[in-house]
Amino acid sequence: MTAPFIPPRRTLMGPGPSDVPQRVLDAMARPTIGHLDPAFVELMEQIKSMLRMAFQTRNALTFPVSAPGSAGMEMCFVNLVEPGDTVIVCRNGVFGGRMLENVKRARGVPVVVDDAWGAPVDPDKVRDALRAHPGAKALAFVHAETSTGAQSDAATLARIAQEHGALSIMDCVTSLAGTPVRLDDWGIDAAYSGSQKCLSCTPGLSPVSFSSRAVERIQARTTPVQSWFLDLNLVLGYWQSAGKRTYHHTAPVNPMYGLHEALVMLEEEGLENAWARHRAMHEKLKTGLEGMGLQYVVDEAAHLPQLNSIHVPEGVDEAAVRARLLNEFNLEIGAGLGDMAGRIWRIGLMGHSARQENINHCLQALEACLR
Amino acid sequence: MTAPFIPPRRTLMGPGPSDVPQRVLDAMARPTIGHLDPAFVELMEQIKSMLRMAFQTRNALTFPVSAPGSAGMEMCFVNLVEPGDTVIVCRNGVFGGRMLENVKRARGVPVVVDDAWGAPVDPDKVRDALRAHPGAKALAFVHAETSTGAQSDAATLARIAQEHGALSIMDCVTSLAGTPVRLDDWGIDAAYSGSQKCLSCTPGLSPVSFSSRAVERIQARTTPVQSWFLDLNLVLGYWQSAGKRTYHHTAPVNPMYGLHEALVMLEEEGLENAWARHRAMHEKLKTGLEGMGLQYVVDEAAHLPQLNSIHVPEGVDEAAVRARLLNEFNLEIGAGLGDMAGRIWRIGLMGHSARQENINHCLQALEACLR
Repeated sequence: MTAPFIPPRRTLMGPGPSDVPQRVLDAMARPTIGHLDPAFVELMEQIKSMLRMAFQTRNALTFPVSAPGSAGMEMCFVNLVEPGDTVIVCRNGVFGGRMLENVKRARGVPVVVDDAWGAPVDPDKVRDALRAHPGAKALAFVHAETSTGAQSDAATLARIAQEHGALSIMDCVTSLAGTPVRLDDWGIDAAYSGSQKCLSCTPGLSPVSFSSRAVERIQARTTPVQSWFLDLNLVLGYWQSAGKRTYHHTAPVNPMYGLHEALVMLEEEGLENAWARHRAMHEKLKTGLEGMGLQYVVDEAAHLPQLNSIHVPEGVDEAAVRARLLNEFNLEIGAGLGDMAGRIWRIGLMGHSARQENINHCLQALEACLR
Repeated sequence: MTAPFIPPRRTLMGPGPSDVPQRVLDAMARPTIGHLDPAFVELMEQIKSMLRMAFQTRNALTFPVSAPGSAGMEMCFVNLVEPGDTVIVCRNGVFGGRMLENVKRARGVPVVVDDAWGAPVDPDKVRDALRAHPGAKALAFVHAETSTGAQSDAATLARIAQEHGALSIMDCVTSLAGTPVRLDDWGIDAAYSGSQKCLSCTPGLSPVSFSSRAVERIQARTTPVQSWFLDLNLVLGYWQSAGKRTYHHTAPVNPMYGLHEALVMLEEEGLENAWARHRAMHEKLKTGLEGMGLQYVVDEAAHLPQLNSIHVPEGVDEAAVRARLLNEFNLEIGAGLGDMAGRIWRIGLMGHSARQENINHCLQALEACLR
């Protein structure tokens, strides 16, 4: 007979999930109601409204996909890309590579703009690519590369896309609620994020937002969306205003409770205060890490406050250090991904994890392991 | 400022979600850990093992998809169907129609075997279809049609598929843990279910299982799987045995706690006892409903114990009755879907909802509303 699972109590300072506040955990445990219950409809409307605040948008089509960020990413590509469409994809880390994979699988024609891992996307290269491919349907880029901790200039990239008549698709999985994201000011057409990073909800949901221009393009498609689960024309019928909803799928009711509570907490703190807190905590962590002689992977100008990538010091067994942090200090930090595996650590300061207590704990524990 | 969301306390006797036991809700609220934490790996292994018990299979590739049942369905089709493949699709309700939609979007060539809504799938028609299409790659059918409450003879259908060299793909969203499902005995190649029906976990996860024959076919594909999120070749790297896991996506950690607890409870009760309980509660509800003069939609031989579809009596405003049940009695029952909208009610007796208290409450409340 299997015993109930009692998880250890960790401090989560990896690239996500982040620490989940007790209020969010408590919300997850409230009694389940039906996904067509009028009370659930009201919950959905409130979530949509608060997500618009988080994304800084008035986009009507703003809601949480009932699946992790990878599905939110796929929703953007399978709806906006039709077979044969040219899409400029910026790749400066793992998640740009995933966008490329999504374009290919949607049978789009990708044009890759490569930048070094750890560097932001170079707007000049993007401009050149759009000039070289005048009919490009979309520009896709990652605002905050979770694999490296580099932040790109989303406002500039979106403006370049507009100048060339291309839609902009932005991954803001790690940036949303941690560093300024302003969909409407920047003119972003499609954005996807995750519930478990700076929103500090549990993992499993993917907030997305689509501009009216993006919706028009989706409605004007001449080919069906290849995914039934992610077809916005169907999902729209489910998430649209109360009263007119049609059944699409059974929404993850309790995780929606959690997301609602996380967004209520964000409202209470204030979005700009949350950005400022992430920035302030980053400065403190950075001072501490650099004081220990550790070096950042990313140039200071492109530092993403909530994800601090540092080089593993020469001669240190990085996996052994992470194992010791976990086993002795109940502290999770992240390893490198892809090309950076074994060479960097990624220390997250996301959402509820961006607190002085966590920084102190992390610095003390790291020092003990590197001594 | 938005207030925290406090859901009403409902009795859930619709077509899902079902009542979630307090133990499962409590599990959802345990502290979040990382999806790559060794403790989470152990949790995953236990979930996989208990799901094998629930599916009655030794299939190594048995795990919960990180998204609702609709995504589990899509995972089966996008991995097993390549463009041009002929797939026999049985349609005797809404969910057979969804399978058809999935085959089309995977660019398969569907051959539809239609049966009346409320009737089980007719094996003779299936045999004829397979004879008429000798190269068919797969047979797809719904074991328990959630839209009508009709149960089909999965063992016979799977055997016919085998006789014709076709893979069998089975929707057991509403049957798993409520009525016998025996993947290995029947020779099913791919099955998908949902967490929120007879397992009585919260909605949002989709248990799936694939035979080694199915896995071979997936590995032998000549075209890439069109979905990145649902590509089993990638997901396999994530869900395979501890130690060798590669990052694919961030799993919904807390919902996995809930599913684990629901499966522990199923182990404690015993799978066959759970089936017997659903059957016994069905008999009680049926006696009560028929005593009130209400008539079942489905012939007795095909009754699905956990989903009782009854005709709305002549002259009754069905939506008004459901609204009154919800508002006065906090009781949710289901409406008809598709062709049956407005004409039937669907009363669920799934998982934790299959209890004498619920039956009593439902019968009393219905009687009050129909008096």
